[in-house]
Amino acid sequence: MMQFTGANILSVSQFDLDSIEHIFEIANRMQPYARRQKRTKVLDGAILGNLFFEASTRTRVSFGTAFNLLGGEVRETTGMETSALAKGESLYDTARVLSSYSDVITMRHPKAGSVAEFAEGSRVPVINGGDGSNEHPTQALLDLYTIRKELAYHGHGIDGMHICMMGDLKFGRTVHSLSRLLAMYKNVRFTLISPRELAMPESVLSALDDAGHKFTVTEKVEGSSDADIVYQTRIQQERFTTPEEAEQYRGKFRLNSEIYTKHYKPNTVIMHPLPRDSRSEANELDNDLNQNPNLAIFRQADNGVLIRMALFALTLGVENQVDQYEREVNWYSDKRNV
Amino acid sequence: MMQFTGANILSVSQFDLDSIEHIFEIANRMQPYARRQKRTKVLDGAILGNLFFEASTRTRVSFGTAFNLLGGEVRETTGMETSALAKGESLYDTARVLSSYSDVITMRHPKAGSVAEFAEGSRVPVINGGDGSNEHPTQALLDLYTIRKELAYHGHGIDGMHICMMGDLKFGRTVHSLSRLLAMYKNVRFTLISPRELAMPESVLSALDDAGHKFTVTEKVEGSSDADIVYQTRIQQERFTTPEEAEQYRGKFRLNSEIYTKHYKPNTVIMHPLPRDSRSEANELDNDLNQNPNLAIFRQADNGVLIRMALFALTLGVENQVDQYEREVNWYSDKRNV
Amino acid sequence: MMQFTGANILSVSQFDLDSIEHIFEIANRMQPYARRQKRTKVLDGAILGNLFFEASTRTRVSFGTAFNLLGGEVRETTGMETSALAKGESLYDTARVLSSYSDVITMRHPKAGSVAEFAEGSRVPVINGGDGSNEHPTQALLDLYTIRKELAYHGHGIDGMHICMMGDLKFGRTVHSLSRLLAMYKNVRFTLISPRELAMPESVLSALDDAGHKFTVTEKVEGSSDADIVYQTRIQQERFTTPEEAEQYRGKFRLNSEIYTKHYKPNTVIMHPLPRDSRSEANELDNDLNQNPNLAIFRQADNGVLIRMALFALTLGVENQVDQYEREVNWYSDKRNV
Repeated sequence: MMQFTGANILSVSQFDLDSIEHIFEIANRMQPYARRQKRTKVLDGAILGNLFFEASTRTRVSFGTAFNLLGGEVRETTGMETSALAKGESLYDTARVLSSYSDVITMRHPKAGSVAEFAEGSRVPVINGGDGSNEHPTQALLDLYTIRKELAYHGHGIDGMHICMMGDLKFGRTVHSLSRLLAMYKNVRFTLISPRELAMPESVLSALDDAGHKFTVTEKVEGSSDADIVYQTRIQQERFTTPEEAEQYRGKFRLNSEIYTKHYKPNTVIMHPLPRDSRSEANELDNDLNQNPNLAIFRQADNGVLIRMALFALTLGVENQVDQYEREVNWYSDKRNV
Repeated sequence: MMQFTGANILSVSQFDLDSIEHIFEIANRMQPYARRQKRTKVLDGAILGNLFFEASTRTRVSFGTAFNLLGGEVRETTGMETSALAKGESLYDTARVLSSYSDVITMRHPKAGSVAEFAEGSRVPVINGGDGSNEHPTQALLDLYTIRKELAYHGHGIDGMHICMMGDLKFGRTVHSLSRLLAMYKNVRFTLISPRELAMPESVLSALDDAGHKFTVTEKVEGSSDADIVYQTRIQQERFTTPEEAEQYRGKFRLNSEIYTKHYKPNTVIMHPLPRDSRSEANELDNDLNQNPNLAIFRQADNGVLIRMALFALTLGVENQVDQYEREVNWYSDKRNV
Repeated sequence: MMQFTGANILSVSQFDLDSIEHIFEIANRMQPYARRQKRTKVLDGAILGNLFFEASTRTRVSFGTAFNLLGGEVRETTGMETSALAKGESLYDTARVLSSYSDVITMRHPKAGSVAEFAEGSRVPVINGGDGSNEHPTQALLDLYTIRKELAYHGHGIDGMHICMMGDLKFGRTVHSLSRLLAMYKNVRFTLISPRELAMPESVLSALDDAGHKFTVTEKVEGSSDADIVYQTRIQQERFTTPEEAEQYRGKFRLNSEIYTKHYKPNTVIMHPLPRDSRSEANELDNDLNQNPNLAIFRQADNGVLIRMALFALTLGVENQVDQYEREVNWYSDKRNV
């Protein structure tokens, strides 16, 4: 198992199965704090440098909240145009300086590789919050954690399960990372549904193949009726020549109540990395599924806080002291399982 | 009286007189904490999601400060262009996700009705920080609270008082909400001074009429010499065809030391929702009134913190425990009554 | 010595030598907290209003971190276009209102004199975080503090030392302020190396002369081999007619490992106000000096936190109580001297 204290979290490829299961165990322990049943101040006085050189409200706030829930303070930087980086400062210099202000750094940046480059100059652990087309490891971990929890609720595990991934599998960073994580388990079956032009890259397919998993590449939603999970993704307008072409694709690779009922078994779990696009009539994941108890998309967001709390506790070496700094919660709160 | 714990604060129309008086009583109790005579940590560990999809520095900071003064943490989001909302996410989805990160949400948004729509998806209480032309209930409450305190200082109450509202009464959201709140009291006299084109809307006038209040609609400042309050508003450049037209109006509906002395009694209280425009020679509220003790505009800002502290304490159900978590203040502070 | 409690920190000209030495003594005491060897909550419940009407990530975060390290909370405002200032609000009004939300204010603004103007309306101490071409006193103090610490490490003091300032000495605000501070010490020798067009202003030179210091104005790096400090600055592209002209100047007034070894003694301390420009081949301070132990540029950033902690403790009158509110640090931290 990897040594977490003081480590950077840059890529899903740095984890073995034991490390992942350890993160998930710590995430489980975070639940009473995230649901406001208890309060901890284990990170009282610690400072998170939350650096979002590219905008992502939910990821940024999720990191900040996770740190606050452990008792720490958050110093935040958003945007880039006006920063020293725009004046020609190297990521190394930025890292040397900004890391002197905090105890751990979370960073999002539009350029692939930039977070790893930053980490080389940093004096404190750096957690990758997404570096362009490259990696977004906390999203991959929260997706896997959600799958594990949802399947456990239905009485089974990840080994031997069947997952459908649907939509833009070519440019969707989350499905690549998730596939690589799932490849560490046994006998996972993948059904990969997408327009031919947006199919899962060969590199991911060979990784699945090498690890002994079965996959089907298809343009048809039919034939997935025993899927345990359907992981829907967003098809981005900008991938298409005309809006009409986009609409046509969306019409074919969307999920709504009717399609769900027709093509999936009654307790297939529905996931999506969010945000989903609600502007189009033919949106990829319809609001008519909002009351379906198998819709796990908001539980994914909740799980993101748990995963991030776990990573902060682990990289700062306090994962076993969290309950030593417990307090009562004395205000109104309604954070039940939803 | 309304049930505050867990409630949304969306509109002044949701309050009856008892509820308002209860908010004001709690606001009074917040004064020693806001003046730094004492410190409380009643909301230690609670997180405010301060969502300003439209900019408003003073309202945003006022909410954040109020939450900090109760011991809580603040996670902030400003601007909208780069957010998921801009990528087509529904307010429902945004609310489901962002409310999972906090214990209470304050939200400002340029679109009328958006905060109520957001509140439907939220898992935690939502306080409206202004939704376009619609509502800004905490501003209305702080205005009313200021009137109540200022009049009490002069030995009387709201019933039977005389208020002048002046300037842009058509588009000024604050004067509409304040009028509706004042309508709940008895025998209030309104003098509504504005250019004909910017007169108070009929809907507000009939509400006053229905509640048995007397009002005068006029273009003249003369005849208000027994007013207890003069509530001045900003005339926005963009309402006029030419800058010259705007200047002409401003010259007529402005307030300065000379006009104040000539047309009002010596202790008429001067209010304004701020910001006031200091660029024009003929600005609506002149700096030569800055030393006048009846100028209550900065006391309004102070009162805004008290009202917001009260609403946080009430919606999180801790209004009676604030003093149980008291601490000493040990740093230099100079927050006297000003 | 000046009275710090409740005072504004607006300009280096307000300090005498005793005051400066007192700030440095308090800054020294802040070191264990900044290095996370201990934790203090002396400012628990206090609120910093961190107002950056002009962007400066490092200065903004440095102030915020310094306040957090003393146990206080930070409410932040960045940018200006959307603020009330842009709608014509006076700095006086902005100050009256925003200072009612905090216990101390740090402010950066592009306009010279604006922070002092703001301070007149403020109800709480205001610390200047840079007002255009005018002043940036905390930068000047951290520069002087760094010089003092670096020289002490080599066994001597500021009196009688030799400092080289290099680059754009005309527009570089930091070298002006630093020179005025150094002028308070005895027999400092200045070598001022710059293109003729970017030479140190006469006003600074006469101040040095009046105080009895020796200085050499030159375009040549030769002849500084006994310098104790070389303070390099950034030559800004926009000062030149063509990029070629800029490159030519940079080539002449740059510092890299080769030039350093040839022209300076082995332990000459290298400083720079940061950010340095890494885009050009002929950048002013080369990365090949990054491993040189005499490169003090990142220690300058560390010292900035200490100076800002000291100023907060002093203006809020808690400089002698910091250790009364001490706690253990229980998370992983690696803030050694670097």
